Amino acid sequence: MAKIIGNKLKNIPWQERTEEDSMPIWRYSKNPIINRNAIPSSNSIFNSAVIPFEDGFAGVFRCDSKSVSMNIYSGFSKDGIHWNINHDPIEFQGENEEILRKEYRYDPRVCFIEDRYYITWCNGYHGPTIGMGYTFDFKTFHQTENAFLPYNRNGVLFPRKIGDYYAMLSRPSDTGHTPFGDIFYSQSKDMEYWGHHRHVMSTVKGKSAWQSTKIGPGPVPIETDEGWLLIYHGVITTCNGYVYRMGCALLDLDQPWKVKMRSSDYILAPYELYECVGDVPNVVFPCATLTDSETGRIAIYYGCADTVTSLAFTTVDELMKYMKENPL
Amino acid sequence: MAKIIGNKLKNIPWQERTEEDSMPIWRYSKNPIINRNAIPSSNSIFNSAVIPFEDGFAGVFRCDSKSVSMNIYSGFSKDGIHWNINHDPIEFQGENEEILRKEYRYDPRVCFIEDRYYITWCNGYHGPTIGMGYTFDFKTFHQTENAFLPYNRNGVLFPRKIGDYYAMLSRPSDTGHTPFGDIFYSQSKDMEYWGHHRHVMSTVKGKSAWQSTKIGPGPVPIETDEGWLLIYHGVITTCNGYVYRMGCALLDLDQPWKVKMRSSDYILAPYELYECVGDVPNVVFPCATLTDSETGRIAIYYGCADTVTSLAFTTVDELMKYMKENPL
Amino acid sequence: MAKIIGNKLKNIPWQERTEEDSMPIWRYSKNPIINRNAIPSSNSIFNSAVIPFEDGFAGVFRCDSKSVSMNIYSGFSKDGIHWNINHDPIEFQGENEEILRKEYRYDPRVCFIEDRYYITWCNGYHGPTIGMGYTFDFKTFHQTENAFLPYNRNGVLFPRKIGDYYAMLSRPSDTGHTPFGDIFYSQSKDMEYWGHHRHVMSTVKGKSAWQSTKIGPGPVPIETDEGWLLIYHGVITTCNGYVYRMGCALLDLDQPWKVKMRSSDYILAPYELYECVGDVPNVVFPCATLTDSETGRIAIYYGCADTVTSLAFTTVDELMKYMKENPL
Amino acid sequence: MAKIIGNKLKNIPWQERTEEDSMPIWRYSKNPIINRNAIPSSNSIFNSAVIPFEDGFAGVFRCDSKSVSMNIYSGFSKDGIHWNINHDPIEFQGENEEILRKEYRYDPRVCFIEDRYYITWCNGYHGPTIGMGYTFDFKTFHQTENAFLPYNRNGVLFPRKIGDYYAMLSRPSDTGHTPFGDIFYSQSKDMEYWGHHRHVMSTVKGKSAWQSTKIGPGPVPIETDEGWLLIYHGVITTCNGYVYRMGCALLDLDQPWKVKMRSSDYILAPYELYECVGDVPNVVFPCATLTDSETGRIAIYYGCADTVTSLAFTTVDELMKYMKENPL
Amino acid sequence: MAKIIGNKLKNIPWQERTEEDSMPIWRYSKNPIINRNAIPSSNSIFNSAVIPFEDGFAGVFRCDSKSVSMNIYSGFSKDGIHWNINHDPIEFQGENEEILRKEYRYDPRVCFIEDRYYITWCNGYHGPTIGMGYTFDFKTFHQTENAFLPYNRNGVLFPRKIGDYYAMLSRPSDTGHTPFGDIFYSQSKDMEYWGHHRHVMSTVKGKSAWQSTKIGPGPVPIETDEGWLLIYHGVITTCNGYVYRMGCALLDLDQPWKVKMRSSDYILAPYELYECVGDVPNVVFPCATLTDSETGRIAIYYGCADTVTSLAFTTVDELMKYMKENPL
Amino acid sequence: MAKIIGNKLKNIPWQERTEEDSMPIWRYSKNPIINRNAIPSSNSIFNSAVIPFEDGFAGVFRCDSKSVSMNIYSGFSKDGIHWNINHDPIEFQGENEEILRKEYRYDPRVCFIEDRYYITWCNGYHGPTIGMGYTFDFKTFHQTENAFLPYNRNGVLFPRKIGDYYAMLSRPSDTGHTPFGDIFYSQSKDMEYWGHHRHVMSTVKGKSAWQSTKIGPGPVPIETDEGWLLIYHGVITTCNGYVYRMGCALLDLDQPWKVKMRSSDYILAPYELYECVGDVPNVVFPCATLTDSETGRIAIYYGCADTVTSLAFTTVDELMKYMKENPL
Repeated sequence: MAKIIGNKLKNIPWQERTEEDSMPIWRYSKNPIINRNAIPSSNSIFNSAVIPFEDGFAGVFRCDSKSVSMNIYSGFSKDGIHWNINHDPIEFQGENEEILRKEYRYDPRVCFIEDRYYITWCNGYHGPTIGMGYTFDFKTFHQTENAFLPYNRNGVLFPRKIGDYYAMLSRPSDTGHTPFGDIFYSQSKDMEYWGHHRHVMSTVKGKSAWQSTKIGPGPVPIETDEGWLLIYHGVITTCNGYVYRMGCALLDLDQPWKVKMRSSDYILAPYELYECVGDVPNVVFPCATLTDSETGRIAIYYGCADTVTSLAFTTVDELMKYMKENPL
Repeated sequence: MAKIIGNKLKNIPWQERTEEDSMPIWRYSKNPIINRNAIPSSNSIFNSAVIPFEDGFAGVFRCDSKSVSMNIYSGFSKDGIHWNINHDPIEFQGENEEILRKEYRYDPRVCFIEDRYYITWCNGYHGPTIGMGYTFDFKTFHQTENAFLPYNRNGVLFPRKIGDYYAMLSRPSDTGHTPFGDIFYSQSKDMEYWGHHRHVMSTVKGKSAWQSTKIGPGPVPIETDEGWLLIYHGVITTCNGYVYRMGCALLDLDQPWKVKMRSSDYILAPYELYECVGDVPNVVFPCATLTDSETGRIAIYYGCADTVTSLAFTTVDELMKYMKENPL
Repeated sequence: MAKIIGNKLKNIPWQERTEEDSMPIWRYSKNPIINRNAIPSSNSIFNSAVIPFEDGFAGVFRCDSKSVSMNIYSGFSKDGIHWNINHDPIEFQGENEEILRKEYRYDPRVCFIEDRYYITWCNGYHGPTIGMGYTFDFKTFHQTENAFLPYNRNGVLFPRKIGDYYAMLSRPSDTGHTPFGDIFYSQSKDMEYWGHHRHVMSTVKGKSAWQSTKIGPGPVPIETDEGWLLIYHGVITTCNGYVYRMGCALLDLDQPWKVKMRSSDYILAPYELYECVGDVPNVVFPCATLTDSETGRIAIYYGCADTVTSLAFTTVDELMKYMKENPL
Repeated sequence: MAKIIGNKLKNIPWQERTEEDSMPIWRYSKNPIINRNAIPSSNSIFNSAVIPFEDGFAGVFRCDSKSVSMNIYSGFSKDGIHWNINHDPIEFQGENEEILRKEYRYDPRVCFIEDRYYITWCNGYHGPTIGMGYTFDFKTFHQTENAFLPYNRNGVLFPRKIGDYYAMLSRPSDTGHTPFGDIFYSQSKDMEYWGHHRHVMSTVKGKSAWQSTKIGPGPVPIETDEGWLLIYHGVITTCNGYVYRMGCALLDLDQPWKVKMRSSDYILAPYELYECVGDVPNVVFPCATLTDSETGRIAIYYGCADTVTSLAFTTVDELMKYMKENPL
Repeated sequence: MAKIIGNKLKNIPWQERTEEDSMPIWRYSKNPIINRNAIPSSNSIFNSAVIPFEDGFAGVFRCDSKSVSMNIYSGFSKDGIHWNINHDPIEFQGENEEILRKEYRYDPRVCFIEDRYYITWCNGYHGPTIGMGYTFDFKTFHQTENAFLPYNRNGVLFPRKIGDYYAMLSRPSDTGHTPFGDIFYSQSKDMEYWGHHRHVMSTVKGKSAWQSTKIGPGPVPIETDEGWLLIYHGVITTCNGYVYRMGCALLDLDQPWKVKMRSSDYILAPYELYECVGDVPNVVFPCATLTDSETGRIAIYYGCADTVTSLAFTTVDELMKYMKENPL
Repeated sequence: MAKIIGNKLKNIPWQERTEEDSMPIWRYSKNPIINRNAIPSSNSIFNSAVIPFEDGFAGVFRCDSKSVSMNIYSGFSKDGIHWNINHDPIEFQGENEEILRKEYRYDPRVCFIEDRYYITWCNGYHGPTIGMGYTFDFKTFHQTENAFLPYNRNGVLFPRKIGDYYAMLSRPSDTGHTPFGDIFYSQSKDMEYWGHHRHVMSTVKGKSAWQSTKIGPGPVPIETDEGWLLIYHGVITTCNGYVYRMGCALLDLDQPWKVKMRSSDYILAPYELYECVGDVPNVVFPCATLTDSETGRIAIYYGCADTVTSLAFTTVDELMKYMKENPL
């Protein structure tokens, strides 16, 4: 049995699987947990990140406004299900005007490393790249240098140094609705200068076609005794557009650019009406997990149809078993 | 408080806003008011125009047939909500065979000027352009010269001369699913020869992305003491296609190509299932309003998902306030 | 009154038309009859073929797996409505490794000729082409040579020789989401070498726009005393992708590449939520019929939204009348 | 024998056909007559218009600068072959800042009507449309309203009123390298308001494929006793881009939207190195002719490879004969 | 040393290699041998086939007319270099109007089998497919059934039966400037019904990028004691369009779908001005060879820039050596 | 008068400007200096870099093979004009197999910093990115980590540290014939980890359209007392593909992401046949300069039509003056 390396989380949101749930991941019965109009200015709230904070939870949320501009907002919750999201977007502090200048921000991830909460997001700087910042309290936010040159999306930090280096996964992209995309690994001594770029995983044609157009890292990888458990999104191009689904892989603990296992089958796909209908139909897009090392429970937060936010559940054993039974 | 310049309309369809309605426009509770199969031959009825007529209302409706050919039909209603649409399309009279020859007709608007009801629509003449005709009684219809060279869509007349000229808004287009489009103004002394073309409004990238691909005029502009109130559609291109939303602007009374106000946020977007699901998902497309100068009430008729027709309500003050609070 | 040439089928699935059904085809009230997860490995089950077999029915089903690879599965039913589909895909026997090598298989049709059940499907062989095989018992399956060079889809056999030749309809295609497509006729003395290719029907722009992008044969043609009744799919390209609808035509009995009648209007289109929402929204795709020569009843099996399988009903007279009343 | 209606032009540039010239048009032996760097700032000079003026000739030239911005310049010549082009672009006078504001100007035509020289060109006004102006002396230039809404190119005036109306041919376009295009006719009482738009000629697939992608009017139509002689360009799309060739047609004198003759074969195509090699390979693009009514001689000025300007010769009889021998 | 299996051809056109020629193929010093205007109606003559006939040579030529319609013409030559091409296209005889109806014909190949000269070409029949015909004397021509369903190009017969079957190579295509294409093998007992389709060769990305977009068979394969020697064209897509080059492969004598050798390097590419400049720049396209079994000499006829026809020379040993030294 | 900061180079290749040369750059009279077949295996040699070395010059050359695979080769010259290029590509040494694995290499630049010659190139590593290596002697070459994540091209080092950092310009790209591209700046303490990414210059629409599609850095920036002199390429998209031209800019000495001057006009464009005709017509692409601080002379090496290599001359004063006279 695999074991999550990390903290206990007694108050992890949780719901047992019902008999009708045959997939390795099962949905929260009251999905979506955050509606499109949860704050007055929002057109949609989705692709958002949460993390344990104090005795509850904090989060950074993608709220597209009713002008359909993209920005990130902080929020808090006691139970991880009911959220109070600030009505104003995060204002970052920093020294460099060039970096602080905002074009757009979306698809945040949050990762606690050492002493602070790091936030990465897709940041508009003459094209999409990986914006970086941190906070200690989810009140004051500091922005640092963009990690990479454009064009990039889905920058996801590992929750600890690997060797002597901070490490990040990302998906190099283009300027638009990128019709390609692999997952890469990069490392840094100082969170400012990045190098040692390694290819991690490619798309798969034919036999695993749900991930044939592009793939991108989702939540912060979950450390287990068997490797880093990565939940990611995969995309197929149908005659009526993209469909985003969810898969998982296991990366080597010390050389995370080496893939130890990867499931051929998806672990979640748009089945429910709130996943199939919305501003962008047929999207499930995971950005965060909560984990409890004691029980192996995993709660996954994912955006639905680029419109609302939902919650699903699984355990580390379920995903490990699924990858073993459905190898790529 | 802004004031509508125009007639009273005691019997304007109306429903008060409920507490749940937080947007400047609220939907009729029994939407859609016209279903896709409201006449025997129809595949869909949408993007249609209505106007007060005698003691009730008349309309010109886009009914796509079950062969999915596009034509316009007249119809009548006592209350503006329940409609009897003729089972046969409008047959235009006219002297010129070249002009009467029909390829296709769609997206009509109706505008009363001086002594008659003018109808404009997207008319197939070696490509889409603006067809024009008029009626006195919605029984006999006369067709006149196309206003412009192809390729154009969304020709919308102003309800009175401006200076000494009839005036029209339109959206120059291409031959297909045009991926661009601004709103222009043209004028004419005689409704036959048009010139003095002026650019009115462009698309907006980034900060108001819902209108980043193309915009086009919707209903006949509403005259107010502060300017012409224009409701229009705006389109964004997602990875899964276009989303059509609704916005508003205020144009100068005497020089309507000058924009005095324009809201950054949309005023209506596809949220409801009948707006998100249909032959073309995620479309709200306004083509007509009814207005009551006494109360400032506005009833908006709009096509949904290129399939059905719905009704929404607002007031001139709501829209004015919204533009002021959400300036572009 | 037209007469179906063929066997009686007392146990044909059937439901009378209700008053609300105004189209020539009416849906089964408990659609969809096969859900996306009807077998453990399936993401979706659709575009499938059934046929009378022994005292019930057999079928060949397209089941896309949860890795979204495409394959075909056999299944059985007592009533044509409730189906047991094998959990493992069909394994074909044959002598030639080159032909047996499987890339992907989808959209099967089944046709009984002389002494056996022939199966045709879209077969991946350096691109999509028409795969062929046969079975006597739906337990053991034999694969023979591909009928054509790539790129082709929708190979549909006639249920008897025409003149001295076996005959097939198909839709030549390209390597992707083909944006064109006409129906062609080919013949063969031996089911192995094909020639005498004839054009049957083209797409129609403008006046029958639902079939303006591509058309393809659906179920095995139904022999009637007036000609071969062909149900086919037609596709239009909207700004948000393809919409697949269903139409019908009557082909000459002896020279089936000659079209005697063809309806301008579609006979079924995506109206219901299970047809409009799914992995590929707005698709109805017919692949098989059951017919009863005594009553003229026709039961149509069709895929919905590339996700589930449904059933609809009509009679030979209904379709004949519809074609006469709505000629192209 | 057809007769040109118009002035004598003793000093028309001329060169007799040689034995090697088998086409209805033959090139000037010292082509190109204007090189790409004929003025200091120019990258290329092409697609330009000339006209008899005083005892010699005047012209309006498209000079793309070395920044590759597009503008029009006046120039003068004694013999129509050696040209002095002003080093500064034309500065237009006018009352309306909105109209005078220049984005870009290209592909001019010059037409003498009544008392002045009218200039039309492709004018950047929120997209390409037909700019209009006039001069009496080629020193002072006046700009008036754009003739049409965007998007249009190749606006070409007729040299006299037809009926009571000024008349113009044009080619409605889109915002880029337009992949379609027919020729239309429009008329005006006052050169400001245009209407009565008529379709003149379409592209031709298959049997005259050199004009299968788009066609556009070239020089000012030449009045003859048999009709308006129109020289135009036609474009085909090869796997390596567009090829522009030259053709001719005869339009009805009183209803010029009616085509009396049109040649199936082109009259000139890129054969010479200066036509095949340059900034845009494989382009011949006619913008002006000089004609002599006494001899029937026609001198054609045409741009080559979007880089230089050349001269070719023919007679009205040659073109008439060619059209009769090669009818479409 | 490889040996050509076939006839002696004393009068094969020939020129020795000069010291400057370092490639395995060397050009005729007076290329092109056929100019674009070699017959009065022609725009271009290229991609044509020749064969020994009586005491000289006959050929079938692609002549695009000055209307840029495509057709094939017969011609004769004493020396294989100077050609008399008929001024009128080939008129085929046959019984079936459906087949004789001509849309367009291009890129012919000629192959002598048993008792007659077979001609295959790209034939317009609701899209491009492989037209077939034969002649005994190059005066009377008979057309038979198209070999395949559309869409196909470059049908090339083998010069004898293989096993008991006639055999053909071809390149399945789409309706336009096909951006993909592999070579396939088909066989037939009767030249009318074709089957047993086999994949022969694919495009090659990266290491042999000149053939990365599509490949297609060129001249009739040359029988040698080591296998069938196939000269073919390969295409790469640059930012400025396609470049067509020439390569060679060796196919198994009895199972010609098995590739024994294939050179990684091209054997000829557009270097000369007449290959780089023309209606379609950067094309060399081989359609025929003459061979002399006594000397191993090979004369290759190839189209240049879709405009003219040229000649190049090699020997069977040169090509065998080149393939061995530059294996794929 | 501006002054080059750097070494004297007595033997810089040089030719005085002739009277016919009116541009700020003038071509070497015997261009091209390296032909396409300068080594036995080459299809083309272009986009290459040279540098002073010992008493002559060394270079790294892009030689595309006759299989059209891309690789880099070293070479030597006494005079900078006549080159001996090794027949075998550079073999890099290094410790990491992942990095040494070669997909393709092209468009090299060479830059001497401190004690060695650094080489950067476009390196295939799951897509194009910036490969890095160094040599002391152009005999033994060492490869280090790729500078960036894919997708990137045109990585160009500055010839000294700026502040405490090594610095590089580059052009982020996509996976194909990238239709966009700006120039960015990045810095590094160790040539391995890169950060502090800054946008330098964008494309320019309209008024400087030659650089409207994409721009990319060319040779190593030249240090002058007024700033870094950057020669770069700019691309426009015509209807027949891309045209590559050459421009220059002046960057701030200490903050090179700040542009002090930039010329609106190009400094060199494809005029000559060897620039306009070749594998990719209409390309001039600079990759290296030689400079002499004593005279201000600059020799520019540039690729022509993706086929051959040429040489052009200018001086620092010419370029400075040109930028001042033609400001953007």
